[in-house]
Amino acid sequence: MEPRPAKESYAETTHLVLPNDTNTLANLFGGQLLKWLDISCAISAHRHCRRLAVTVAVNHVSFDRPIKLGDFVTIQSKVSRTFKSSMEVWADVWVEDQLTGAKIACNSAIYTFVAVDQAGQPIVVPEVIPESDEELRRYAGALRRRQLRLILAGKMKPDEATELKALFTGPGAGGLIER
Amino acid sequence: MEPRPAKESYAETTHLVLPNDTNTLANLFGGQLLKWLDISCAISAHRHCRRLAVTVAVNHVSFDRPIKLGDFVTIQSKVSRTFKSSMEVWADVWVEDQLTGAKIACNSAIYTFVAVDQAGQPIVVPEVIPESDEELRRYAGALRRRQLRLILAGKMKPDEATELKALFTGPGAGGLIER
Amino acid sequence: MEPRPAKESYAETTHLVLPNDTNTLANLFGGQLLKWLDISCAISAHRHCRRLAVTVAVNHVSFDRPIKLGDFVTIQSKVSRTFKSSMEVWADVWVEDQLTGAKIACNSAIYTFVAVDQAGQPIVVPEVIPESDEELRRYAGALRRRQLRLILAGKMKPDEATELKALFTGPGAGGLIER
Amino acid sequence: MEPRPAKESYAETTHLVLPNDTNTLANLFGGQLLKWLDISCAISAHRHCRRLAVTVAVNHVSFDRPIKLGDFVTIQSKVSRTFKSSMEVWADVWVEDQLTGAKIACNSAIYTFVAVDQAGQPIVVPEVIPESDEELRRYAGALRRRQLRLILAGKMKPDEATELKALFTGPGAGGLIER
Amino acid sequence: MEPRPAKESYAETTHLVLPNDTNTLANLFGGQLLKWLDISCAISAHRHCRRLAVTVAVNHVSFDRPIKLGDFVTIQSKVSRTFKSSMEVWADVWVEDQLTGAKIACNSAIYTFVAVDQAGQPIVVPEVIPESDEELRRYAGALRRRQLRLILAGKMKPDEATELKALFTGPGAGGLIER
Amino acid sequence: MEPRPAKESYAETTHLVLPNDTNTLANLFGGQLLKWLDISCAISAHRHCRRLAVTVAVNHVSFDRPIKLGDFVTIQSKVSRTFKSSMEVWADVWVEDQLTGAKIACNSAIYTFVAVDQAGQPIVVPEVIPESDEELRRYAGALRRRQLRLILAGKMKPDEATELKALFTGPGAGGLIER
Repeated sequence: MEPRPAKESYAETTHLVLPNDTNTLANLFGGQLLKWLDISCAISAHRHCRRLAVTVAVNHVSFDRPIKLGDFVTIQSKVSRTFKSSMEVWADVWVEDQLTGAKIACNSAIYTFVAVDQAGQPIVVPEVIPESDEELRRYAGALRRRQLRLILAGKMKPDEATELKALFTGPGAGGLIER
Repeated sequence: MEPRPAKESYAETTHLVLPNDTNTLANLFGGQLLKWLDISCAISAHRHCRRLAVTVAVNHVSFDRPIKLGDFVTIQSKVSRTFKSSMEVWADVWVEDQLTGAKIACNSAIYTFVAVDQAGQPIVVPEVIPESDEELRRYAGALRRRQLRLILAGKMKPDEATELKALFTGPGAGGLIER
Repeated sequence: MEPRPAKESYAETTHLVLPNDTNTLANLFGGQLLKWLDISCAISAHRHCRRLAVTVAVNHVSFDRPIKLGDFVTIQSKVSRTFKSSMEVWADVWVEDQLTGAKIACNSAIYTFVAVDQAGQPIVVPEVIPESDEELRRYAGALRRRQLRLILAGKMKPDEATELKALFTGPGAGGLIER
Repeated sequence: MEPRPAKESYAETTHLVLPNDTNTLANLFGGQLLKWLDISCAISAHRHCRRLAVTVAVNHVSFDRPIKLGDFVTIQSKVSRTFKSSMEVWADVWVEDQLTGAKIACNSAIYTFVAVDQAGQPIVVPEVIPESDEELRRYAGALRRRQLRLILAGKMKPDEATELKALFTGPGAGGLIER
Repeated sequence: MEPRPAKESYAETTHLVLPNDTNTLANLFGGQLLKWLDISCAISAHRHCRRLAVTVAVNHVSFDRPIKLGDFVTIQSKVSRTFKSSMEVWADVWVEDQLTGAKIACNSAIYTFVAVDQAGQPIVVPEVIPESDEELRRYAGALRRRQLRLILAGKMKPDEATELKALFTGPGAGGLIER
Repeated sequence: MEPRPAKESYAETTHLVLPNDTNTLANLFGGQLLKWLDISCAISAHRHCRRLAVTVAVNHVSFDRPIKLGDFVTIQSKVSRTFKSSMEVWADVWVEDQLTGAKIACNSAIYTFVAVDQAGQPIVVPEVIPESDEELRRYAGALRRRQLRLILAGKMKPDEATELKALFTGPGAGGLIER
């Protein structure tokens, strides 16, 4: 199974924020953005492995800046690393300034997908080849984030998470997340 | 500001999984569940603080068991801990066996909300009083999960996360997550 | 077929009133509430008989108090009485005061469902056991409401509706509806 | 305020039954039809009084025949009688045979609306003039159905409902519902 | 295969413009109207041929007058001409003045459908019989509009479009569109 | 007002075809695609002029190849030419082969938008600079398509459409549409 460049899994989608997507401050609901993020990440996972990909975890999403009614929201996603049958996917969210068109970063999200066959059983996926600086940075921290996800899902003990442990105990062990 | 028992923030909602909520395996999409979870957690946060509450982070969601087309999905949520103006909210998801009515746990989720005023500025929320065993367990790990969230959002350095660090370095430091 | 306590059919759901759910006075549309009521009652009917339950009639719904954009609307439903394969289901609707959290009753509704097999044919359902005062009151009037429903559906003549007739002719015959 | 012929309030709408509108037997959900009925009746009420009209009651709906996925469902509604500020509206539902185009009656529904001003206060509506046989039949029973609705809403005692009472006690008192 | 009068394919639907259907000027989005138009035209095409009809082209739609939030939008459609397995369908859109009820024409649209069997293969449809003046006018220009559509779809050369050519070269050749 | 390169108006969005988007052959409805096309073209028009842009016409859309349930549909759009306050926008639609990922062209569409101020009045837009071969080809035919649109909207007589006329009468006058 041939490894594939990360950029081949790239997906982009622009949404318009409508009244039903907003709260009483006229800001986009978190839940609606989470749904859009999931769809974009699923497309990226599919483009990487060409199989049905199902969400197994949301590793982390932070909402840094309110998005307003009427904004155009663009989501861009790419597979950052693979582990046998699972794929970590990063999505970046930005809106554009209505007058200047400048892109304003709003938040980023990390989801994990698994490729499955028609019986719903996990299947092995191709490895991903990070090329750009950002792809390399995101690739680097993915192993630590995977251990963190397994601890949070109750499938690994903190003791066994050697990579993650090093982050807190050793010097120069690299970060957990680097944008 | 009077502290409030966790149970007063309890919210429950049952959804029916419709065709548009499912993938080609006829299983519920992760993104749709994320949206439903966000709404239930927002209701719990609102019931705790009686103010508008906005999502600031998804700390962790894992999808442990596929949910099928036609299933009744019940989401139950409660505030697990508060930090000045932010609230950690846990949601549990279960479906019921169509013949026996038995409840089957499918997954759980942790979201963080912040209470805001009409200008969107954070405001202080009442403290939560955990009472049941489960409420006490979830309360206990919340400080470590908060440090983790801040690291992942780039707002804290691993070095400064003393509570979280102890999890990996010290003995008997308690867990990150305990259901 | 073992009779079942009414409370085992209890279903609860909370909805947030969004812009598309409201008219130009920013009040919830009747039709949207009717749809939500139908879903909650269907869940109760299903929980009682553990079979697919289909709506055969709306007996009565009255809208007593406008519900506003942004309100959290909670619907609670329970089977009130069964007749061979049909089930009368009551639903109560309330909103909560945004500042005090006080529950405000908005209206109640009575629907009738029938349990069907995979060919769509009616099948016998377990009897319901009313226990609380409210359950007993609602159980008591159900036979009269059933005769009324059959008259309105053109399946019974007023003359044959002996229970209902007594309501208008005899003394102390009990009510048609008692909350 | 000039009385208006019933036919001027006529409204017609055809819907296509989509997957999300159906249950596991691939039949239209009752709740979805109730929502469509409410919208059609609201248009009729508006066409009669040219003011905002809000649902105050569903008097009766019976579901006589399942409607299938892919069917074209046509709803036709008209104001049947008015009472100061309230309007009784009847809706008839039919599907068409896919091969012959023959119209098949599926069910009918009776809703009550009230005309309101911008403050939500009831305002007087024009009287309706029934002309066709069907319009005259439906007009005739409306007073009895109104008393029934008020009893069910807890706003009238069975004793006071003289018109309705006559239906059960006197001879030749006319029907409650005549299609 | 018996020809059928145009009026037998008549379809009418009234929609209420909701917040999610509008832009920041509170006017109906073009795209939402295009979707409603397509559904109405599909019903007309189906009523004419009694087979599944799929959209093959939008010939022309112009938006002449903004439609506002809260407006009732009525769409009326009819088959204007047939060509073996394709059907040209016209739809007219109007809103009603909220106070007087006067009908205000907003725009009209021309779509082309093809009747298909269960394998998706085109099948021959009955001819249409235009009767009213409007039906005759629309029938007359349809051949020229068909040549135009084929040119725009890259399936005919301008040179071969003899009917259309006459419109620009000959005298008294009739119009391309006549309302 | 500075002219802007066509490529700066580029917009891309990928949609997943869900059950409610399809007909009984499990193919995407034309109307749903028309709505998605309108949104993408509106984003392109907005990116070009940085003002609210409203649909004034659908010039032409042809549906060349059925799109299936579960397909990922990608829409790419760009402004092709401007005329004072109106903008012609082209959109191309493709799906990707689920196994090989190959892009398959399905159809293209031409919409016209007008930039408006907050009162809904047309305002002048910057000119567009076509650069690629495709941009130049599409730019070239736009004047003829504009005359065609005005004729179809009843705002120009065939006689006055000199550019369009040349297409049918003169030699080497260029095409109406060139992909």
